[in-house]
Amino acid sequence: MPSEFDLIARIRSRAALRPDVALGIGDDAAVLRVPPGCELVVTSDTLNAGVHFFEDVPPFDLGWKALAVNLSDLAAMGARPAWCTLALSLAAPDAAWLDAFVGGLLALAADHDVALVGGDTTRGPLSINVTAHGLVEAGTALRRDGARAGDAVWVTGVPGEAAAGLAVLRAEREGRALALAPDVRAQLVGRLQRPQPRVAAGCALRGLATACLDVSDGLLADLGHIATASGLGAELDPVALPVPPALAALPPPLRRDAQLAGGDDYELCFTAPADADAAVRAALAGVGLPATRIGRMVPGRDVRVRGEDGEWRVPPHRGFDHFRA
Amino acid sequence: MPSEFDLIARIRSRAALRPDVALGIGDDAAVLRVPPGCELVVTSDTLNAGVHFFEDVPPFDLGWKALAVNLSDLAAMGARPAWCTLALSLAAPDAAWLDAFVGGLLALAADHDVALVGGDTTRGPLSINVTAHGLVEAGTALRRDGARAGDAVWVTGVPGEAAAGLAVLRAEREGRALALAPDVRAQLVGRLQRPQPRVAAGCALRGLATACLDVSDGLLADLGHIATASGLGAELDPVALPVPPALAALPPPLRRDAQLAGGDDYELCFTAPADADAAVRAALAGVGLPATRIGRMVPGRDVRVRGEDGEWRVPPHRGFDHFRA
Repeated sequence: MPSEFDLIARIRSRAALRPDVALGIGDDAAVLRVPPGCELVVTSDTLNAGVHFFEDVPPFDLGWKALAVNLSDLAAMGARPAWCTLALSLAAPDAAWLDAFVGGLLALAADHDVALVGGDTTRGPLSINVTAHGLVEAGTALRRDGARAGDAVWVTGVPGEAAAGLAVLRAEREGRALALAPDVRAQLVGRLQRPQPRVAAGCALRGLATACLDVSDGLLADLGHIATASGLGAELDPVALPVPPALAALPPPLRRDAQLAGGDDYELCFTAPADADAAVRAALAGVGLPATRIGRMVPGRDVRVRGEDGEWRVPPHRGFDHFRA
Repeated sequence: MPSEFDLIARIRSRAALRPDVALGIGDDAAVLRVPPGCELVVTSDTLNAGVHFFEDVPPFDLGWKALAVNLSDLAAMGARPAWCTLALSLAAPDAAWLDAFVGGLLALAADHDVALVGGDTTRGPLSINVTAHGLVEAGTALRRDGARAGDAVWVTGVPGEAAAGLAVLRAEREGRALALAPDVRAQLVGRLQRPQPRVAAGCALRGLATACLDVSDGLLADLGHIATASGLGAELDPVALPVPPALAALPPPLRRDAQLAGGDDYELCFTAPADADAAVRAALAGVGLPATRIGRMVPGRDVRVRGEDGEWRVPPHRGFDHFRA
């Protein structure tokens, strides 16, 4: 059985470095160089077995996702990812599982030039915490609280597919698999298990978006966070949301719920001046990610949604809460 | 029952800020300013219920310790603490427990001018991860790999009391309480549950120590880490170790084991040139923490310990391993 120190050595041997890492894995702490003129952007997210993922999720995907959810937070700030630490609690060390897990984390890290610089490996119920560090030119970070009344509300990519993927997996585990074509199932589950953090889009939106966050609690809840932080209300028109084939294949109530209340897509929801549509589209076309204008910021405090009858209503429930779900 | 967002608001309302925090708790990530000429020092440590602490530990002490173990890593690098994030997994939200826990963490944070700038609150078996950030003038961080043959080996304060405190608690839980005076018990358990990270000592040792780390795995194991990283062996004379009244009250085998193999004291073990004794003593006197010269670095690979018969031996086991304990 590998020891704690073997596990750390195993991880260390595979971690890439960057020139701004003065000291990486293996000491009491990492030593890192922040370039002059840049601010440091820091976020920390945990994934717990049975809460955030099924225990039998492929370990490669789990490693990928543990970093992805953090890079998504950096993307929402408009920051370039730089470094991360990994705190991993394992019930028992399993070299094959660990290699696949670290493989997934480092594959996404390589995509974004992120160095794994330290962390902690310990015994406990399976739990993964990643703290990610990014860099942004001083004063340019995107925040939640900058939206203005009249701003347009946008979302990148396709919100809802990850939540639909979760519904698919849950149905299968309960023995009532949905009748879906294999490519539809693969698309939805792939969005859930290997989310693509919208790093390039976040960077492209600096200086353009007035507020931004990543959709992790669900579109309605997260738009609510922008509204609250900015002291405004918001209106969201679900008809505007993209419906690609994988979502079109779903029963409409499931699709609508996934689009509005589903987390885990890690798309960016952002606001921009109403007259900046062309600039927004051009910026995101430059990074190959479409975005959709889905609503607007308004005075007040409510987040209202247009129903199928054309009426605007405040929905009874906005999204996910870990202690109420 | 408080929601996840209530819990975050509860923590946020109590967290102090620093002028170098451009954006603290409440957005997707924190934005922080590293002063010119400084390097960033980052460490991350997890405490899991049943592994690192008894579930019924006072929550104030648990919050204190969760930060202390991280500040100790910064101390070992000679870094000044600046910011931390907290990732907290809770089986169920309990406002009174959380208030005490956050109180302990923020009390130690206030002692060291550390700002809590973000994190994650989620559902899961009780687990705490803190990632701490410190600052050090570029190129001056203390490392493990700088010891030279002939260097003296030192340890700050009193190693062994925390491990003795753990032995006391374990014995009590098994119904075989040790016969100890109340003040002795309080001293030992206090060292375990509210360790004092040696931050001022670590800063005072910059430019003086050739290698440094904090004693978390046990003195022998951690001296072994310095030896391995520096490509050397080491000799440690247990007779030199301080024996204050609380340790003197213990059965000698328990005391010796706690001194050499016990973790959790978070003293600093460091090396310095053999002719630098006066400078070391003066530097640590300046921060009010005594240190003891306990051995020396030698060519080779072994860590040898002098036995009561005066013979030097390689002990069979160096200390704690999470997956072998």
